Amino acid sequence: MAKIICAGLGPGDPDLISLRAARMIGAATQVAYFRKAGNSGQARSSVQGLLPAHVAEFAMEYPVTTELPAGSPAYDAALSTFYDDWADRLAALSGEVVVLCEGDPFFYGSFMHLYIRLRGRVEIEVIPGITGMSGCWTATGQPITWGDDVLTVLPGTLPEDALADHMRRADALVVMKTGRNLPKIRRALAAAGRLDAAWLVERGTMPGQRIAPLAELEPVDCPYFALVLVHGHGRRPGRAA
Amino acid sequence: MAKIICAGLGPGDPDLISLRAARMIGAATQVAYFRKAGNSGQARSSVQGLLPAHVAEFAMEYPVTTELPAGSPAYDAALSTFYDDWADRLAALSGEVVVLCEGDPFFYGSFMHLYIRLRGRVEIEVIPGITGMSGCWTATGQPITWGDDVLTVLPGTLPEDALADHMRRADALVVMKTGRNLPKIRRALAAAGRLDAAWLVERGTMPGQRIAPLAELEPVDCPYFALVLVHGHGRRPGRAA
Ligand SMILES: C[S@@+](CC[C@H](N)C(=O)[O-])C[C@H]1O[C@@H](n2cnc3c(N)ncnc32)[C@H](O)[C@@H]1O
Ligand SMILES: C[S@@+](CC[C@H](N)C(=O)[O-])C[C@H]1O[C@@H](n2cnc3c(N)ncnc32)[C@H](O)[C@@H]1O
Repeated sequence: MAKIICAGLGPGDPDLISLRAARMIGAATQVAYFRKAGNSGQARSSVQGLLPAHVAEFAMEYPVTTELPAGSPAYDAALSTFYDDWADRLAALSGEVVVLCEGDPFFYGSFMHLYIRLRGRVEIEVIPGITGMSGCWTATGQPITWGDDVLTVLPGTLPEDALADHMRRADALVVMKTGRNLPKIRRALAAAGRLDAAWLVERGTMPGQRIAPLAELEPVDCPYFALVLVHGHGRRPGRAA
Repeated sequence: MAKIICAGLGPGDPDLISLRAARMIGAATQVAYFRKAGNSGQARSSVQGLLPAHVAEFAMEYPVTTELPAGSPAYDAALSTFYDDWADRLAALSGEVVVLCEGDPFFYGSFMHLYIRLRGRVEIEVIPGITGMSGCWTATGQPITWGDDVLTVLPGTLPEDALADHMRRADALVVMKTGRNLPKIRRALAAAGRLDAAWLVERGTMPGQRIAPLAELEPVDCPYFALVLVHGHGRRPGRAA
């Protein structure tokens, strides 16, 4: 029976992997990772320098990405079958399997869908990772939260008015899953009066990293690894906020 | 002139330090870290196994902790002078200085107060870290956010009604800086109808880690390294939420 080790990989730069995850990856005989069909996959690419030569690889290719509307019955059914099948396949392996996961696995990660299916059936260890958002705010060179600041993390998939409502109430903001939701996120930020303080971070800590004030950007294609940040300003001893 | 490298140490377990931070710490000739007077300091303790033998150490001891009310003019003045002085002292050193910081430095970290004073005067590199909250939710064995979940992070220092108000609106919650604020946080959770789903995590990933449902705990002393979590339940293909 398998033991599953889910290794959080951090924001993308392989140098930001934890000592523990790096050791597990370096000693792996079997690894599994999610990817879009036809894509090498960010998780797999970022461990290129760490993986042993003769490791067995299981690429778990999503059956749907944007062909079906997220949350539709057809989309949910396709993904559910996909997670069921991979949970069964991984559980049936013998020895340790290292599942590679971007960022921190328990923070909006796909691994969680395998986790709830495997829990109680096999031994599972989850190694936390640096979140994509930590990599991104560090890359902007500005702290995200100070003192009494409230931080709200929003999935860009939410409806525009729900986004705007949350954006009005928090001090610091992170909007994940930007991609095709960027125009909607931008309108919500404008409605909440926060657009001028917003930054778009694309591929934080990865090759091709780009950081720009969102208000100044021409509407363009936004990559999958992108998020929007608004920094908090909090209480600071001896400084005006 | 000094170069400052601020190394995020993660939640406490030294095995969760990043490769980059571990390399910088292992090669350091000078390190600095915050601590309470009379305390060895969590940041310093967690790198015990990584620090070279003859490193020069600068313990930056807070001039006040809980003697003065946070935000009072006397408190702010004392801290402001403290940060000014240490910024000057670190800037005057020659060679690299590694500043050790718990969790992720730009997420409610004390280093940020040095950072804004040193920026532009010396070269500074900040290495992100795994946040304390990632270590804590991973330790609970339950994912924190799924699908469309909104996560709000609240400093326990906020007034009770502001806490309750935010607690009603988000799906997943993290309340930082629990300590003496725990009774107030508990009342706010109860007012928001979220107490039964709340967990207290003390010393996540550190020796003495303790995880318990908050509603079942007797009111006791809460350590500095403690936070409250409410997990989100989001949308899950093929599963009832
Ligand atoms: C399904 S979520 C997974 C989050 C991941 N588990 C984490 O801890 O960051 C994917 C989203 O995370 C954000 N993201 C993750 N890493 C990123 C990076 N390096 N740069 C920009 N955005 C990133 C993007 O918004 C992306 O759409
Ligand atoms: C001043 S904040 C610094 C946060 C840190 N920079 C981070 O990224 O987690 C200190 C608070 O973080 C929380 N915290 C940090 N690490 C923790 C851990 N290992 N277990 C429980 N709480 C922790 C506690 O609420 C504590 O009062």
